[in-house]
Amino acid sequence: MTAFPKRIALLGSTGSIGQQTLDVIRCFPEQFHIAALAARSNVTLLAQQAQEFQPPLVACFAATPEIAEAARAALPNVVLGEKGLLEAATYAGADIVVAATSGLMGLEPTLAAIREGKTIALANKETLVMAGHLVMQEARRAGVPIFPVDSEHSAIWQCLRGEQVSEVQRLLLTASGGPFRRATLEQIRAVTVEQALAHPTWHMGPKITIDSATLMNKGLEVIEAHWLFDIPYERIDVVVHPESIIHSMVEFVDGSLKMQASLPSMHLPILHALSYPERLSTAATGLVRELRWPEVARLNFEALDRERFPCFRLALEAARRGGTYPCVLVGADEEAVALFLDGKIGLSGIAELIEAVLERHQSVEQPDVATILDACAWARRTARELYAQHFLL
Amino acid sequence: MTAFPKRIALLGSTGSIGQQTLDVIRCFPEQFHIAALAARSNVTLLAQQAQEFQPPLVACFAATPEIAEAARAALPNVVLGEKGLLEAATYAGADIVVAATSGLMGLEPTLAAIREGKTIALANKETLVMAGHLVMQEARRAGVPIFPVDSEHSAIWQCLRGEQVSEVQRLLLTASGGPFRRATLEQIRAVTVEQALAHPTWHMGPKITIDSATLMNKGLEVIEAHWLFDIPYERIDVVVHPESIIHSMVEFVDGSLKMQASLPSMHLPILHALSYPERLSTAATGLVRELRWPEVARLNFEALDRERFPCFRLALEAARRGGTYPCVLVGADEEAVALFLDGKIGLSGIAELIEAVLERHQSVEQPDVATILDACAWARRTARELYAQHFLL
Repeated sequence: MTAFPKRIALLGSTGSIGQQTLDVIRCFPEQFHIAALAARSNVTLLAQQAQEFQPPLVACFAATPEIAEAARAALPNVVLGEKGLLEAATYAGADIVVAATSGLMGLEPTLAAIREGKTIALANKETLVMAGHLVMQEARRAGVPIFPVDSEHSAIWQCLRGEQVSEVQRLLLTASGGPFRRATLEQIRAVTVEQALAHPTWHMGPKITIDSATLMNKGLEVIEAHWLFDIPYERIDVVVHPESIIHSMVEFVDGSLKMQASLPSMHLPILHALSYPERLSTAATGLVRELRWPEVARLNFEALDRERFPCFRLALEAARRGGTYPCVLVGADEEAVALFLDGKIGLSGIAELIEAVLERHQSVEQPDVATILDACAWARRTARELYAQHFLL
Repeated sequence: MTAFPKRIALLGSTGSIGQQTLDVIRCFPEQFHIAALAARSNVTLLAQQAQEFQPPLVACFAATPEIAEAARAALPNVVLGEKGLLEAATYAGADIVVAATSGLMGLEPTLAAIREGKTIALANKETLVMAGHLVMQEARRAGVPIFPVDSEHSAIWQCLRGEQVSEVQRLLLTASGGPFRRATLEQIRAVTVEQALAHPTWHMGPKITIDSATLMNKGLEVIEAHWLFDIPYERIDVVVHPESIIHSMVEFVDGSLKMQASLPSMHLPILHALSYPERLSTAATGLVRELRWPEVARLNFEALDRERFPCFRLALEAARRGGTYPCVLVGADEEAVALFLDGKIGLSGIAELIEAVLERHQSVEQPDVATILDACAWARRTARELYAQHFLL
């Protein structure tokens, strides 16, 4: 395990997780140094971050010439395009790669970083959902750990410290239930974009907020947990816990349960992934608000209603079928959520569109990277075509 | 660490913890063998247990000639008196000593077992409360672990697996609050013995049930936690959690909390102490009822009211003063609870009597075993005298 100071390559530095990672690093300048920053298109923020942290390597992996031009103007030494992202992921001066790019962009740089022996702090769900078999195989081969940054998986990881995975009976992921936990199917059909973006306990980017509202996010997390902890799907359950205080639980074969808790915070799982195996005191930083018990007077638990949240069911079906189905799930969901955010389909339309795309798919077993990206691109195309053909009308 | 089968000497086999220890061993005959049984006065049950488990050594440490006679008649090879208890504690054919005798009887055999290099599964609170400094010193010297059997301490122990004690911010012991959690001071004064013996979540022996009703038990547990985990008193808190599902919590310096949970069960902490570092599957045994989450719909947390539960305050004051004060606390409490169970004083009288005895005590620093037992005997005598002098009238 790397000693402090740890040198960090941050992929996706201008996104929600990227910015919160920099909050953490700002609090612990002795322990963490930024070795590389990579962002897609927010050149202004990337330039500010580069100014503040002075990393040896800055990459901007934007696809458009305009953004590339702006990046070159603001950051004379910037490395552009996919090449930049891969250079940041494999940079020799980094010990840990924080993979916090959104969507499909995460897969290839994460695999490249693993092959270079980097410790991975993984915030990108799609990477494991689409390519869990490849990522975990490469990680085992390279002998590198994959540390989760999600609060649920960080909770499970913390509960498993000092324990044997062979003695795990069940993983129990908690779910806030999102803003429509109590809504009827009818109400969910009539949800506006604004309502769906107002998550009760977590502040996140728009895509993951919608995935939380549909519970797709929880389905993706089950798949992620399966790969991270090598636990079969039939031993991973979800329980709705609206307060988001207990971030997940592990039940052991003897009947004992362990849980990890905090006030809702992404800073804590980020810090844990960076500082592991040590825990750093946040007392003087203001980074993590203290959970005071008699103030947190009550924790509630409810069953997850799969009827009202079909995206959760679709995710688990895709996971159990395996092959390229999870890639199609991810691709179709990206497209469907974009259509919802554009006001073109309703919230219930997301699951309907994904299900239609999954039904049309011919899966490939044990897909390689090219096949994964192909399946995902096919799913996005098919989702758009179905929408254009008025499938939902 | 000892491999299976582990050979167990059970001190206090006919008490509540003793019997539940045998329940556990009955479920895992391949893993655990009874090497020695020791009980005080329940000769009939001891003889049944000896018949069932056929241990090489059986001891009856009763003080009266009648019981000794009965023991000799039922168990031809029985070893009698304190000698029997010590022989069981130090028996060469045992790897683990379960110290489940009640009250003061536990101290000397536990120290003897430690010196013989036995792993200690400690169910007797008084041992650490009165002599934590001696017990932990001897355990460190002998290089033997002290495993807790109490549900709260087992929870903390489980939460600390794979963690550094130096990274603990706070221990949070949960307390059911006992049967008088919602009672006023006036109502507590009028409590009957029957009401006090009806604990809402735990079924235990009469002494510990009364200690739970007065919250003295929680005070003793704080002292025990201090010694077991080497955490200063100012970093041990108590939170009332009426459902007794979360058995305790550990807060780490980064702000993360871990908790251990199960339905209320003593079998689980006993099993954990015996099987550690492994966890044995209880699925086929019926020993531990599964905690199903949507059925356990709500967990509540409240502050502990030290006004209404002065025994808790007295325990912490005695602990902070140190020396022989904790011995006096234990001795005076034993006598006061006996007087309450005999219907001679009210429930509120327990704290009043203990406080009066503590006020009259001249403490000795770093007491040895003789001084500890003397202080405890003095406290019992003084409590009886104060009662006889109508102190409470």
